[in-house]
Amino acid sequence: MLEQFKVSHDDAEFVQGDDLKKTVAGIFEKLGVSPDDALLAADVQVLADLRGVDSHGVSNMLKSYIQGYQEGSINPRPNWKVVRETPSTATVDSDRGLGTIITPKAMDIAIDKAKKVGLGMVTIGNARHLGMASYHAMKALDHDMIGVCMTSCPPSVLPTFGAEPRLGTNPIAIAVPCLNEPPFVFDAATSSVAVNKIRIAGRLGAEIPGGWLAAEDGSPIMEPSLAPENVTLLPLGSDREGGSHKGYGLSCIVDILAGVLTGFGYGVTPGRPNFGHMVAAYSIDAFTDVEPFKVQMDEWSQMMQTTKPAPGHERVFVAGQPEAEVEAVRREEGIPLHPEVADWIRDTCGEMSVPCSF
Amino acid sequence: MLEQFKVSHDDAEFVQGDDLKKTVAGIFEKLGVSPDDALLAADVQVLADLRGVDSHGVSNMLKSYIQGYQEGSINPRPNWKVVRETPSTATVDSDRGLGTIITPKAMDIAIDKAKKVGLGMVTIGNARHLGMASYHAMKALDHDMIGVCMTSCPPSVLPTFGAEPRLGTNPIAIAVPCLNEPPFVFDAATSSVAVNKIRIAGRLGAEIPGGWLAAEDGSPIMEPSLAPENVTLLPLGSDREGGSHKGYGLSCIVDILAGVLTGFGYGVTPGRPNFGHMVAAYSIDAFTDVEPFKVQMDEWSQMMQTTKPAPGHERVFVAGQPEAEVEAVRREEGIPLHPEVADWIRDTCGEMSVPCSF
Repeated sequence: MLEQFKVSHDDAEFVQGDDLKKTVAGIFEKLGVSPDDALLAADVQVLADLRGVDSHGVSNMLKSYIQGYQEGSINPRPNWKVVRETPSTATVDSDRGLGTIITPKAMDIAIDKAKKVGLGMVTIGNARHLGMASYHAMKALDHDMIGVCMTSCPPSVLPTFGAEPRLGTNPIAIAVPCLNEPPFVFDAATSSVAVNKIRIAGRLGAEIPGGWLAAEDGSPIMEPSLAPENVTLLPLGSDREGGSHKGYGLSCIVDILAGVLTGFGYGVTPGRPNFGHMVAAYSIDAFTDVEPFKVQMDEWSQMMQTTKPAPGHERVFVAGQPEAEVEAVRREEGIPLHPEVADWIRDTCGEMSVPCSF
Repeated sequence: MLEQFKVSHDDAEFVQGDDLKKTVAGIFEKLGVSPDDALLAADVQVLADLRGVDSHGVSNMLKSYIQGYQEGSINPRPNWKVVRETPSTATVDSDRGLGTIITPKAMDIAIDKAKKVGLGMVTIGNARHLGMASYHAMKALDHDMIGVCMTSCPPSVLPTFGAEPRLGTNPIAIAVPCLNEPPFVFDAATSSVAVNKIRIAGRLGAEIPGGWLAAEDGSPIMEPSLAPENVTLLPLGSDREGGSHKGYGLSCIVDILAGVLTGFGYGVTPGRPNFGHMVAAYSIDAFTDVEPFKVQMDEWSQMMQTTKPAPGHERVFVAGQPEAEVEAVRREEGIPLHPEVADWIRDTCGEMSVPCSF
């Protein structure tokens, strides 16, 4: 049933990552963002596209970022600053800067602190959209560190037994380096499913599986159904018997660490600036020798991948491995853009007098 | 369907927590454990009973601990030590000491480091059973800190699409202080359900819901069924459509942070000493002012609790709140022990010449 949600790329236009990045950066600059920040914002979106995380790539996110800058809800030249600091922690006021731009800088601070004292953790309030959470977590990999990223989003998910959304999709991302295997990169919402999948199903008129959504009165819809107009998501686990109190609790953890702990409020705080983020870096060397750790991570990853598959499946995946495989292909072949998306980018460039590189 | 798994306590014998603690500590001392450590081990088990987490209380755990000491697989006088250290981290070799005894000491180290530099994180290898994970996380509360605990367990859970168990139930616990509301205390396995629930269902001949177990070939059993002899659990999310790749990924994170990062191996490492643990403490003051944080946690908790309930439910709970309510009752009324369990403890005391306080 999942296959039907994949948009066909038979007639896709393939664009090289660097060309897409240059184009998107040009659009950001035109919106008032500094050249360095524009390139960074473009890098975050294009890496999502390269890794097959289309939900957080250019086609799904660029439009809303442009809108945010044009409406003034995102600040193109934020005076972001560290408002509190200890040897291992910092709290950042991002001054309504886009999360895709401020969060990598916060992660640099976390990495720097982890180099000095073993761990680093930074919360980011007064923030805007994060982009692909694993982008920020993966920054730790080059430093032989484990990277963490969470974001507290506006409410769309029900607590178990509840009839009103109180939590966002609140994703958790963690990246761990291996030696020769692709790094372990987990990046998932704590809801049963991403909103984007429901939207695609709605567009295609496709049935969605039970366990993803709630009816208007809050009852979990446990049978396949057509996607409704107003989407309210269930937590991971779907209903109490399926363990939804765990998905709900994990979502709460994100709302606390990336919301309350920022000092700028949480998901449903009235009038809260949309998002709060948290990043962390753990130095592997602070706990154990790096080389043997990475060798053991390779063994561990191989052990998972060689698990005997259940009937109907060819192989067992490890988080980050499918994305690494897609990335290898797309760095060669380019990123498949739906022709309408490619045209929309070209039109946007035309309207904004920005050169389009494809 | 969940109600039927509750063992009736109509004919239970009620024992005061302090009496149970004294008795259990006596048994531990007789097994060669030092008086202080014996009291600590008893405290961990009895707090689980007081909070209604019977799966990790005396009735479910004491027998296996006694057996472990008698067989020599648990070391009653471990020469545990910090084998690596930075200002914010430590790695502990627990010398086959019981996790219920070594982990609180490791958490003390994490708290001490968090006081000095903002964060503290300690991995614990060469370890034995942890007990209730939230016991260790909750130690942070008195210090106005957020506490974290994870444990990498022996394999019983399938990876998504896999037919062989590669991961343990690998729980995650997090505790966050409030001002007047009970603290937020999340403590849950990353599997769809606890093994203990299946065992109870098996004893009672009760049907269990779909989504908890796998058939022998690894296929998820998605319809209600009788509990089988050999239990293989599914990850949280049950199957791919339900998001089991997320439960599987979260379990992997625990296996890495509380396994590979200890330097003493992970869940399926052949011959690995059974368990690895991780604890962490985050100083709230390192990020934001403590008092406003706790006030906002109260608001946040109230906001969750006052969510309009879905049909068939009276209220929405927050993690830690049901346990706090049970604790208030049991500290008054005592802990309900099944008469067979109470008799078994008395018999055990008799055999070991240990005074029984009830």
